[in-house]
Amino acid sequence: MFRNHTCGALRASDIGKEVTLSGWVQKLRDKGFVVWVDLRDRYGIVQLVFDEERTPAELLEKARHLGREFVLKVHGKVIERTSKNPNLPTGDIEVLVSEMEILNKALVPPFTIEDQTDGGEDLRMKYRYLDIRRNPVKNNLIFRHKVTMEVRNYLSEHGFIEVETPYLIKSTPEGARDFVVPSRMNEGQFYALPQSPQTFKQLLMVGGMDRYFQIVKCFRDEDLRADRQPEFTQIDCEMAFVTQEDILQAFEGLTRHLLKTIKNVEVPSFPRITYDDAMRKYGNDKPDIRFGMEFGELNEVAQHKDFNVFNSAELVVGIAVPGAASYTRKEIDALIDWVKRPQVGAKGMVYVKCNEDGSYKSSVDKFYDQEDLAKWAEVTGAKPGDLICVLSGDAHTTRTQLSALRMELAGRLGLRKADEFAPLWVVDFPLLEWDEESGKYHAMHHPFTSPKPGQLELLDSDPGAVKANAYDLVLNGNEIGGGSIRIHDKATQEIMFRHLGFSPEEAKAQFGFLMDAFQYGAPPHGGIAFGLDRLVAILGGQETIRDFIAFPKNNSGRDVMIDAPAKLDDAQLAELHLKLDT
Amino acid sequence: MFRNHTCGALRASDIGKEVTLSGWVQKLRDKGFVVWVDLRDRYGIVQLVFDEERTPAELLEKARHLGREFVLKVHGKVIERTSKNPNLPTGDIEVLVSEMEILNKALVPPFTIEDQTDGGEDLRMKYRYLDIRRNPVKNNLIFRHKVTMEVRNYLSEHGFIEVETPYLIKSTPEGARDFVVPSRMNEGQFYALPQSPQTFKQLLMVGGMDRYFQIVKCFRDEDLRADRQPEFTQIDCEMAFVTQEDILQAFEGLTRHLLKTIKNVEVPSFPRITYDDAMRKYGNDKPDIRFGMEFGELNEVAQHKDFNVFNSAELVVGIAVPGAASYTRKEIDALIDWVKRPQVGAKGMVYVKCNEDGSYKSSVDKFYDQEDLAKWAEVTGAKPGDLICVLSGDAHTTRTQLSALRMELAGRLGLRKADEFAPLWVVDFPLLEWDEESGKYHAMHHPFTSPKPGQLELLDSDPGAVKANAYDLVLNGNEIGGGSIRIHDKATQEIMFRHLGFSPEEAKAQFGFLMDAFQYGAPPHGGIAFGLDRLVAILGGQETIRDFIAFPKNNSGRDVMIDAPAKLDDAQLAELHLKLDT
Repeated sequence: MFRNHTCGALRASDIGKEVTLSGWVQKLRDKGFVVWVDLRDRYGIVQLVFDEERTPAELLEKARHLGREFVLKVHGKVIERTSKNPNLPTGDIEVLVSEMEILNKALVPPFTIEDQTDGGEDLRMKYRYLDIRRNPVKNNLIFRHKVTMEVRNYLSEHGFIEVETPYLIKSTPEGARDFVVPSRMNEGQFYALPQSPQTFKQLLMVGGMDRYFQIVKCFRDEDLRADRQPEFTQIDCEMAFVTQEDILQAFEGLTRHLLKTIKNVEVPSFPRITYDDAMRKYGNDKPDIRFGMEFGELNEVAQHKDFNVFNSAELVVGIAVPGAASYTRKEIDALIDWVKRPQVGAKGMVYVKCNEDGSYKSSVDKFYDQEDLAKWAEVTGAKPGDLICVLSGDAHTTRTQLSALRMELAGRLGLRKADEFAPLWVVDFPLLEWDEESGKYHAMHHPFTSPKPGQLELLDSDPGAVKANAYDLVLNGNEIGGGSIRIHDKATQEIMFRHLGFSPEEAKAQFGFLMDAFQYGAPPHGGIAFGLDRLVAILGGQETIRDFIAFPKNNSGRDVMIDAPAKLDDAQLAELHLKLDT
Repeated sequence: MFRNHTCGALRASDIGKEVTLSGWVQKLRDKGFVVWVDLRDRYGIVQLVFDEERTPAELLEKARHLGREFVLKVHGKVIERTSKNPNLPTGDIEVLVSEMEILNKALVPPFTIEDQTDGGEDLRMKYRYLDIRRNPVKNNLIFRHKVTMEVRNYLSEHGFIEVETPYLIKSTPEGARDFVVPSRMNEGQFYALPQSPQTFKQLLMVGGMDRYFQIVKCFRDEDLRADRQPEFTQIDCEMAFVTQEDILQAFEGLTRHLLKTIKNVEVPSFPRITYDDAMRKYGNDKPDIRFGMEFGELNEVAQHKDFNVFNSAELVVGIAVPGAASYTRKEIDALIDWVKRPQVGAKGMVYVKCNEDGSYKSSVDKFYDQEDLAKWAEVTGAKPGDLICVLSGDAHTTRTQLSALRMELAGRLGLRKADEFAPLWVVDFPLLEWDEESGKYHAMHHPFTSPKPGQLELLDSDPGAVKANAYDLVLNGNEIGGGSIRIHDKATQEIMFRHLGFSPEEAKAQFGFLMDAFQYGAPPHGGIAFGLDRLVAILGGQETIRDFIAFPKNNSGRDVMIDAPAKLDDAQLAELHLKLDT
């Protein structure tokens, strides 16, 4: 028996008990006549005491030579602590050790196992098993477990069935790159790992499963940007015989349940905004609505004066930055430099200080009088004390730039509060999206998304104008979920594939099974998928997903702890009928 | 709105209500003046009625032309059924349809969507989405969901944290073949898909996670035997600071909870048997103890007579087959033929009929008198009316053959009852297993299994005699779980690798990260993994796992529905720095 209590369990009421504990040495203080050891496990920390008066000399000597992270089993008596530690749940007691076994020694860890560690990202990843001992990482993993349990229990209680779909499936050229798996038994052929269980969940709907979910790993072989992982986890859901409204209601329910049970936050009915409005008001299809700073379009009030920069622009658009009229010239110049950074890319920025006395001071006073600027303030909702920041240029680019500025300033002003939750549905996404690079339309959501009723004809005349019953759930400026009503008949699916540039043969080779299935009585259906890693990070009030993943990969897709990927034996390659082509 | 009730929901108390339903046409009966349609969804079947008197002519005509598996949305009034159907929960009512929309037509399905289908295995796999509409498959998937929910909630309530371990890991030459995944970003290198999260769960223990579980897909690229799948699901568990006894107690608790909640079966404390005893008593390390027929070793009572077959054998061993003394000569000959089949491989079989009058009649009466045979009956526990079947030869082979006969006869006698559950712990497995093919010892469980305390020294002198703290949970003759106490110090792990034929360099290259981890304060730990597919099938009282998997692969590892694996584009291969070597 290794323990009858955990290190976080003992309280004043346990004083007098004989206990057995196991755990790690967190800290050792040797005061000569007395040695204190903090013993740590998943559940907490408890103080062990050894002293000259009550501890056998040999045991005291042994305690003196313990190192950090040694693994101990101790037996002893719970006694009252002379100087209590109110910061520790076990701070009223300590354990006077009578027996001690060193279960395992430990080398000095490469970084300190403390809440604030001295370990850099690389070291923490290489020794991830030590990093997990730290409270922040450990608690994130436990938090993730709690979230997934809540998700599963909620969905299960609402009639959803978790069905495991296969991991060894078929590669499709559409979308992001697949990870593939050579088959030994089927020479020259490959499986692919799923980017999502999309077609399988649709087949489950054809199969009458009605309400499906799965918390499932998905795989995308993309060049990794910061905070992306080649393997990631989705809460994948699908429902049959539903309208978009049914789906929004169902998953608003799930999200509200999570906010309530996990964060103890009650949120009102989620606002909804169309994609077009989101772009106009926030320059972003995943607006953070924890704060205002909505866009004001200034074309009408700012054009047709003598300021050619605005006159020649497709869009002139501004935001009111609360309380920023007091920015110094230097601060404003820094802001202008910020929007001109290549990552943002604006050519410049016009600003208006809305003074407390009701007057205006702008960088374009030469072209605009006080009355003009008052109109700007009206359109952007600026109040005395605010700073209006105005960008101009082609509409899409300018909105994107102003969105970046809006988010940056909100961050600086402390308006993006980690403990505030502002969910939002963005609806009516375009069906297709023009891709400059390939000179083709792509499916904005995926090729199985249904156009809005009656808009199928528009596909030929004005493909970019076709809207879809597609929706995203946005939380605090992050897309945490996205989905759509699907196509459920073969003819429409064929039209979609044609518009996406598939030949009939390609469509049949890749997705023939799905179109076949649609011919055998497919019900109307739709669904949604949540990015679990991101969802958990946001609920946890943190920016990065990496510390909510037990064993993440680095930006080169490597697991530096186990050193993967790695070379294969020649024999292994030969068995797979493969040669390297390097 | 597609429905306000499901097809299984309506009862007599709903009579008079206007309802909207959606579902599939299960059956259509056209009696001329009246048409009945059975409408089906996941939740049940409801009868729709259209008749000349109450239904508009056009709607009646439309109903007449519905086909099987058409998808409908109907609106109508719940009315009392004139001839009630007590076999149907909705059998007291029918719905008089006033509006009907055909949501989707359906081709005639390639097999009937009935509990007993006319579809063969191949067709059912190709059109798996139709097969899932059938109650037996649908109910199996729902059953699987219920089992996993129970497992998760039980383990979570007992302090286990579900942690997701990575799918893209590193290939190891040990054990079964890995599926591998070429890396595009790391030229010439490969990930492997996990055969189990073994090393990661051990690292979580080193990381202080204390109690871990995960329901997780695992992958093994083996030549597929019947009822094996290249991807399968494990309930993977690990605990720190535990003895074998702690683990047996914890997972006996889980198994008992499942039997109680899922099957409403209370089982007493699970019996335990050592591996050696299981082999001696049942010729099998996963004995089915729903019935007796224990082995009786007859060397002492059957050797040293004039029967040379027995005298020259290492082992003479028999079982008493209850009530089989009445077998005819022909039946017994058929039994002898059965044990001589290549799959069993016995050279012959000696039998003794224990007559109701207390006399014996055997196939070796020439060599043994009644007193001899009475001793055989005593050793095998045979009663009047039983048939003693005796095999002989080298010990291991003979036991295996007699075990096959025992299982076969128990099956024929109806002793393997699907609704009876007899769990059993098999403990004290050998650490190593001699492999004839390679002429080497292999780890019987895996290379991370700890030898029993004090037996490490035996590894050099008598490796086959070393026992491990390894255990299997057996249910009704199937291994449903297996695990062990692990090695948790570097020195022992190095000794193990050496005995398994790893050079120090190979051990370091493959498992250096684990041995490194052991140096930083690894706690004693151990765990278990359950085969979920098999567990669910056995709890469901069925023999085959395939119908508890939504989209299984066939015996060539192919998904015949989506036609995977498949060839890749040359461009895709080039991006992966690969060439086919075919």
